[in-house]
Amino acid sequence: MATQLHPFDPITPGEITLATKILQAAFPGVTLRYKKIDIQEPIKAEVVPYIDAERLGKPLPTKPSRLLQVLFHRLDTGAFFKALLNAGARTVVYAKELPKHVQGPVDTDELIEIEKLCLEHPAVQAEIAKLQLPAGVTVCNDPWIYGTDDINETRRLFQCYMYIVETDHAQNNHYSIPCKFSPVFNALTHELVRMDYLPATVDASTTETQPWKPVKTIQYAHDLLGEPLRTDLKPYVVQQPQGPSFSIQGNEVAWQKWRFRVGFNSREGLVIHNITYDGRSLFYRLSVSEMTVPYGGKTSLTGWMEQIANLEIDPRAPFHRKQAFDVGDVGFGITANQLSLGCDCLGHIKYFDGYRCDSKGNPVLLKNVICLHEQDNGLQHKHTNYRSGAATVVRNRQLVAQMICTVSNYEYIFAFIFDQAANIELEVRATGILSTVPFDNETFGTTVPWGTNVGPGVMAPYHQHMFSFRMDPALDGPKNTIYHQDSVAMPEDDKNPYLVGYTSEETIIKTSGTADTDVARHRVFKIRNDSQINPITYKPIAYKLMASPAQMLLASPRSFGYKRAVFATKPIWVTKYQDDELFAGGEFTNQSKESQGVEKWVARKDNVENEDIVLWHTFGLTHNPRIEDFPVMPMERVSVMLKPDGFFTKNPALDVPPSTQPFNKSTLHPGPATCCSGGVKL
Amino acid sequence: MATQLHPFDPITPGEITLATKILQAAFPGVTLRYKKIDIQEPIKAEVVPYIDAERLGKPLPTKPSRLLQVLFHRLDTGAFFKALLNAGARTVVYAKELPKHVQGPVDTDELIEIEKLCLEHPAVQAEIAKLQLPAGVTVCNDPWIYGTDDINETRRLFQCYMYIVETDHAQNNHYSIPCKFSPVFNALTHELVRMDYLPATVDASTTETQPWKPVKTIQYAHDLLGEPLRTDLKPYVVQQPQGPSFSIQGNEVAWQKWRFRVGFNSREGLVIHNITYDGRSLFYRLSVSEMTVPYGGKTSLTGWMEQIANLEIDPRAPFHRKQAFDVGDVGFGITANQLSLGCDCLGHIKYFDGYRCDSKGNPVLLKNVICLHEQDNGLQHKHTNYRSGAATVVRNRQLVAQMICTVSNYEYIFAFIFDQAANIELEVRATGILSTVPFDNETFGTTVPWGTNVGPGVMAPYHQHMFSFRMDPALDGPKNTIYHQDSVAMPEDDKNPYLVGYTSEETIIKTSGTADTDVARHRVFKIRNDSQINPITYKPIAYKLMASPAQMLLASPRSFGYKRAVFATKPIWVTKYQDDELFAGGEFTNQSKESQGVEKWVARKDNVENEDIVLWHTFGLTHNPRIEDFPVMPMERVSVMLKPDGFFTKNPALDVPPSTQPFNKSTLHPGPATCCSGGVKL
Repeated sequence: MATQLHPFDPITPGEITLATKILQAAFPGVTLRYKKIDIQEPIKAEVVPYIDAERLGKPLPTKPSRLLQVLFHRLDTGAFFKALLNAGARTVVYAKELPKHVQGPVDTDELIEIEKLCLEHPAVQAEIAKLQLPAGVTVCNDPWIYGTDDINETRRLFQCYMYIVETDHAQNNHYSIPCKFSPVFNALTHELVRMDYLPATVDASTTETQPWKPVKTIQYAHDLLGEPLRTDLKPYVVQQPQGPSFSIQGNEVAWQKWRFRVGFNSREGLVIHNITYDGRSLFYRLSVSEMTVPYGGKTSLTGWMEQIANLEIDPRAPFHRKQAFDVGDVGFGITANQLSLGCDCLGHIKYFDGYRCDSKGNPVLLKNVICLHEQDNGLQHKHTNYRSGAATVVRNRQLVAQMICTVSNYEYIFAFIFDQAANIELEVRATGILSTVPFDNETFGTTVPWGTNVGPGVMAPYHQHMFSFRMDPALDGPKNTIYHQDSVAMPEDDKNPYLVGYTSEETIIKTSGTADTDVARHRVFKIRNDSQINPITYKPIAYKLMASPAQMLLASPRSFGYKRAVFATKPIWVTKYQDDELFAGGEFTNQSKESQGVEKWVARKDNVENEDIVLWHTFGLTHNPRIEDFPVMPMERVSVMLKPDGFFTKNPALDVPPSTQPFNKSTLHPGPATCCSGGVKL
Repeated sequence: MATQLHPFDPITPGEITLATKILQAAFPGVTLRYKKIDIQEPIKAEVVPYIDAERLGKPLPTKPSRLLQVLFHRLDTGAFFKALLNAGARTVVYAKELPKHVQGPVDTDELIEIEKLCLEHPAVQAEIAKLQLPAGVTVCNDPWIYGTDDINETRRLFQCYMYIVETDHAQNNHYSIPCKFSPVFNALTHELVRMDYLPATVDASTTETQPWKPVKTIQYAHDLLGEPLRTDLKPYVVQQPQGPSFSIQGNEVAWQKWRFRVGFNSREGLVIHNITYDGRSLFYRLSVSEMTVPYGGKTSLTGWMEQIANLEIDPRAPFHRKQAFDVGDVGFGITANQLSLGCDCLGHIKYFDGYRCDSKGNPVLLKNVICLHEQDNGLQHKHTNYRSGAATVVRNRQLVAQMICTVSNYEYIFAFIFDQAANIELEVRATGILSTVPFDNETFGTTVPWGTNVGPGVMAPYHQHMFSFRMDPALDGPKNTIYHQDSVAMPEDDKNPYLVGYTSEETIIKTSGTADTDVARHRVFKIRNDSQINPITYKPIAYKLMASPAQMLLASPRSFGYKRAVFATKPIWVTKYQDDELFAGGEFTNQSKESQGVEKWVARKDNVENEDIVLWHTFGLTHNPRIEDFPVMPMERVSVMLKPDGFFTKNPALDVPPSTQPFNKSTLHPGPATCCSGGVKL
């Protein structure tokens, strides 16, 4: 079988169909329910000779086989399997049954199924009836990943949070009116496990479901605001009359001196492979490898069913179980928005599609899930010679590869931004809707110390968003070293007579492990290649990580929340590269008891000096909601950058043409000068 | 005398002329040399009733008098004076002689004078002769502010750093070839005080001036690169076919729901006055109040003249004396670039002019020193209902008021950025050219631990850039309170059964003083008005400061560098408002022995709870240069934001119209789909 596909190309619909054929042949007579069919990250040792030959324009060696990864259930036994297939050879490399406690991620069909199951269940219907809702108002639900609170739990569970919603518009904001009951379902048996009741006062007491006292929904959609839109915003049009500065071949992008491949998979969504600059290797792979969103509001509740049946579940719940792993539990690929021209970006836009499978193994097109466009980011460099007034001005043109993921209520906008000075930025914007809880706040002054009232009867609890940025560097080759450089005052001795001296201290990470950020010491992490010495600085060529120092996970080390997300407890991790170590929280995060991720890999205590290494940066937001974050949140921006630091011999953007009016075509504001010639009548 | 000027308007040329007339009348027969004639910040108590009436559309009270501030020398006695004039009454409020140790800032005429004096001095000429420069090559100099290292010094001194430069182009980069001699001049007597010799090896030894061994200049100007420019960058044109969304009346800006006044003075440059949003008062005044750039490289040197004459000067010098206060020593107003259409911003641009005086008191036009334009900053908020696919998308339109200051070698780009969600950002971009020193680095491996080789014979020492952002809040009125909120894990007790609880702790700053940032506790500083309670959160209306946690000044508390810049040793200062307390490092920073700034004002231990207060945030960059920062530096960006936090009752950007293709007119990239339908031949 021939293939024109590159080893890093995303899965194709043909490969999805091929995978089902291979597995049907391997499991004759058994019906399989597919959770995931995706490209398996290729074996690095096989790919590197291939991409090196591509980069150097040498004859290409044999293309590595494309491997496919499948997660599925046997419907006869219910057993959960992981299979690895060789697409070229059409063979099953392995198909292994996973232990009973391993839960796969939620998939799209399952989510819809649980939603439906929940709304149709008699116990839920009975609760809804008690609300005595008026016409035009109904109840909907968001099935939530069931964060672990029991070491013995092996059922596949979903906690459904219920909301009251009007039916007259597709964008009614149900998060404005949370209900006080919350059923838990077994997703495999479809049984109702328990009806939880949510506390809605400053103490933990709960109440039977009462008739709903109507309140006005706080709407975000323009049609529903009930107030006029601004009329004074004038159009701002980006025109690229000569087209974009990039060119595209399949998934390979060429822009200015950059070359890279846009990857996509159902778990991480956008991945950037094989980044080179001016023919030099920089990074093998960049991705957002995991994130976790723990909700930490102290809350308690009493359910009714556990009092008669499920005594193994602690009675005070369920908000502590809200701990989403949006990559591992769901996937940024399958939640990526299908973007529309002119909405999400300005200018000349290239879109990339993706594919996922449905539960029957059919390919499903994910149209326009990644966009690529240029943007102007103001000035990159300027200098004016004050004697002559002569100025050199260069603008900062950027190339942005972006995806926007909707994880139920919340949106994340991820952008890898490349510029002309060889910088790479990972920008994360958090927007969307706060995950709300019911709260009886009618009485003036009723507040909680771990959340913010955002409307009548509705409160948004404190939470954290912790991201893991995985960087697989290959600066002028695969063997790299991580170190940090701190800026420290010199001792007050005779070598520092004016007491103003400071110097830098370097600490090399020699063994796989962790490190802390340190603002007070201006700690900077760097990646270098010890075998490539810069001819002017006389130091190894390097890139620096402009980390985003952040508060780490607030949960106690004794909590499940911590044990499941150890990656979120330290900002910097360094591991020796091994295939299949892609996800900071481990492969299976859904209902995990403890992580099998980066903390296990650093524990090998590998040598990571001058080795093929991976750098992981955990950063994030402690999000104590503002009321202004509701009903939809103005974006909160976090940025991490990779910048050359002794990689080149001078500013690599010097040859960017100057910023001039004939090129930029700006418009001068008319009207009188602001400083009149007099103002004072003499 | 009638005036149409607003109390916050910048000085006019008529007022400059008026000031000289008033002073000439007050000092009959005496020739005055003017250093500064500028608007004096009006007395707040007089202005507030006036701007409140403006905001509320009420009848305006009497306009406060415009006050003018003048710094000048009497040429007969050499005495240095500060005068305050009442422009309306044409009177001298006071004219006081300042103590002998007080040095005014450098002014433009003085800078040119010192440059010329230096180059023409026989001792300098003698050193230049020793260089035996070839034709087409000459020497230029940057006169530097003389950082204090002697408590008894009262002379007005400049240290001239000398560079070799080709003469064939206005943008030859002299910073690429620093000389090893550096004369010091008395600016009042024009005497050569001393010829310093600069160390250029890893130890402190110096040498007599030797014939120059030519090296190639590392150029930044496009004409001089000697390499072709990139040809693959296509135009990116911002069009605003219906014009801008802002309107301008004099110096008052109206944009979306914002109103503010663009101020300008010779010291701070751009100042924003009287910021309101939707008719509500937010900030009385925002400005960058001071900055300091200490160079900390341990260096030593031996001069020759002090061995015979000036023994009071420590022989090891002079790099420890490089400590610029770019606001107080020079001024962002007088160093602000005169901007050109289509170079510094895209789109529809409004420019504001300013005026300064020359040494004779004549007004000098500073054309286009501030620009104002809109920009698109990607998405502001988005939510997709995953059930219906219906999405609400709103872009983040911003209004930018910007100035670019050239302080000899370096450039700072300051932008106040307003958006539609009621956020205000202060963005600082550092660019321009590193301040370099000579370094004999021909031998492979020759480096220093406090600087970076950036070319043959040239090294860029470590230094810091510390900015002071002065915020004078008036959130719904003048009486505000500062506090910080930390996020802390809850105790592991029975109120936190799942060990994931966290809460926030508030600390009110009750007495004028300082506070530290604290990333590990996610410390957030807030400004609130205790008398205005948000009707939904039940908490006082507030804005939060998204501070930029940074390493503070590295100099020893025993050093002059520290004593002169105490503002740079703590990130947060809170003072009770007093007129005339505008500059964090004190009024006179040039050759100051110790600061008379914010550290003195906090020492009053004023009550600052529910008072008219000022919040000062020190942030900055520890800048250990990359070679990529040379010969001109790709901008390094630092950002500080002010965000509403319980100031409104919901997201204030909800009524911004949606982002749509008919409005935005984006272009779809043509060509084949990236995911072909097959790829694998089945």
